[in-house]
Amino acid sequence: MFVIRRSVRFSETDMAGVMHFSNYMRWMEDAEHAFWRALGLGVHMPDEAGAISWPRAAASCEYRAPARFEEEIELRVAVERIGGKSLVLVIDFHRDAQHIARGRMTTVCCRLSAEGFTSIEIPAPIRSALEQFAAQASPGGPA
Amino acid sequence: MFVIRRSVRFSETDMAGVMHFSNYMRWMEDAEHAFWRALGLGVHMPDEAGAISWPRAAASCEYRAPARFEEEIELRVAVERIGGKSLVLVIDFHRDAQHIARGRMTTVCCRLSAEGFTSIEIPAPIRSALEQFAAQASPGGPA
Amino acid sequence: MFVIRRSVRFSETDMAGVMHFSNYMRWMEDAEHAFWRALGLGVHMPDEAGAISWPRAAASCEYRAPARFEEEIELRVAVERIGGKSLVLVIDFHRDAQHIARGRMTTVCCRLSAEGFTSIEIPAPIRSALEQFAAQASPGGPA
Amino acid sequence: MFVIRRSVRFSETDMAGVMHFSNYMRWMEDAEHAFWRALGLGVHMPDEAGAISWPRAAASCEYRAPARFEEEIELRVAVERIGGKSLVLVIDFHRDAQHIARGRMTTVCCRLSAEGFTSIEIPAPIRSALEQFAAQASPGGPA
Repeated sequence: MFVIRRSVRFSETDMAGVMHFSNYMRWMEDAEHAFWRALGLGVHMPDEAGAISWPRAAASCEYRAPARFEEEIELRVAVERIGGKSLVLVIDFHRDAQHIARGRMTTVCCRLSAEGFTSIEIPAPIRSALEQFAAQASPGGPA
Repeated sequence: MFVIRRSVRFSETDMAGVMHFSNYMRWMEDAEHAFWRALGLGVHMPDEAGAISWPRAAASCEYRAPARFEEEIELRVAVERIGGKSLVLVIDFHRDAQHIARGRMTTVCCRLSAEGFTSIEIPAPIRSALEQFAAQASPGGPA
Repeated sequence: MFVIRRSVRFSETDMAGVMHFSNYMRWMEDAEHAFWRALGLGVHMPDEAGAISWPRAAASCEYRAPARFEEEIELRVAVERIGGKSLVLVIDFHRDAQHIARGRMTTVCCRLSAEGFTSIEIPAPIRSALEQFAAQASPGGPA
Repeated sequence: MFVIRRSVRFSETDMAGVMHFSNYMRWMEDAEHAFWRALGLGVHMPDEAGAISWPRAAASCEYRAPARFEEEIELRVAVERIGGKSLVLVIDFHRDAQHIARGRMTTVCCRLSAEGFTSIEIPAPIRSALEQFAAQASPGGPA
């Protein structure tokens, strides 16, 4: 499990007085990028053949309790599945002892070129870093 | 099926040159609000006992092809499920003939008071409007 | 004067119950882009030597009265100054008869290349379109 | 001078590959809120007569150089003017030795009630905290 902490900004709230549901997606992406950096990899990974990037194929979030202005929230990143070309991350949102939301992102390993994105097999060094993280971080499963 | 059209704003793009994935959530909400208005109901519905609102319990999106600056996108809203207290909407994103994304939102019918949100049974007039829409709009199913 | 109309989205409000002040900047940009399209020009203008773009050197807004969810706001674009390399637009926000905000953007005519932005003299056809608009639109001045 | 540091998020970039100009406004607000907390005051300040808040009357930014994804930016807050009912803050954006942007916000001291915002004289304890900060922080002026 990899963890970051964030406080809700005023500009992230809406007129219902809580963090707008779309902003959980931005936070999930921030956690994903911090996770890649913690693995010693950037989210844009230049290699000998150009660059690798991870556009999302799907993103979802279950909202259990709202988050409010200035509250500190902990985001816990777990690897749920390492596929041939794709990666599923689960990002849990906690406020103190309360589990307030669960996000999930399916990202696809792509080579980035002038023509756009082409999906590729996850390169061995990246797969190895992900597997090592998954083995250490979640011996009992993704949650 | 209920339809709105929107163009991608410059501020909705990201450095990958496409609409940021979190903005699909904002568009889904815009479509939901326009849908309620088309049913003759607002998203904040005052009644004799206060007000009714529909916070989301879950939101998700599958991304099939990117949307780019100034492209016109059609959002098609369908009612997938009318539960006792909840409603599932499917919002499909189309660019011309291409189906570029599918969103889904589970919203919960809540009475809004000073203490916050309390889930309630969907009131009969609202249920009736939803059922009438669902019957007319999608005889063959939600998609 | 060039006019567009927009309604305040739920996701544009904040916990104070009004449109967040940063979103006026996004609306100003939307109005600017619609203005360029109305002149028959895009905001990214490809030409024989590459492309021309208009990054902002400054942006400001005076807030006189708040805008609320679902209110329809009229944005009125006027050309305040056509410089050698820069353009100042004034964008006024009106809700019915009330003048609720005034924005101003200084944008710089730039050639866009792989190295980034380089400021250039406004090309004659663009200057001519701007001058013609300014002459027709605001005989008595920018406001 | 009061300082915070922030990194540019992916969701804050636009298709020009730089932080979108509207996001500087959000950062300025974040710096303002952190500044109030550093003075021992919240941005929403409850007192014996209700609550005090600081809606903005004006906001502006001069953009000198772009900020890019993952760059760390330093925001320096200075008090430019303490008026009877208003406060002008200057927020300078620095990337290492480079001064990349200067923002300015005029906020108005308001009592917040069910009817909305009413401007009031800045209460003595708040004025005192601001004057003490201004005296210590910027002996040679706001910049």
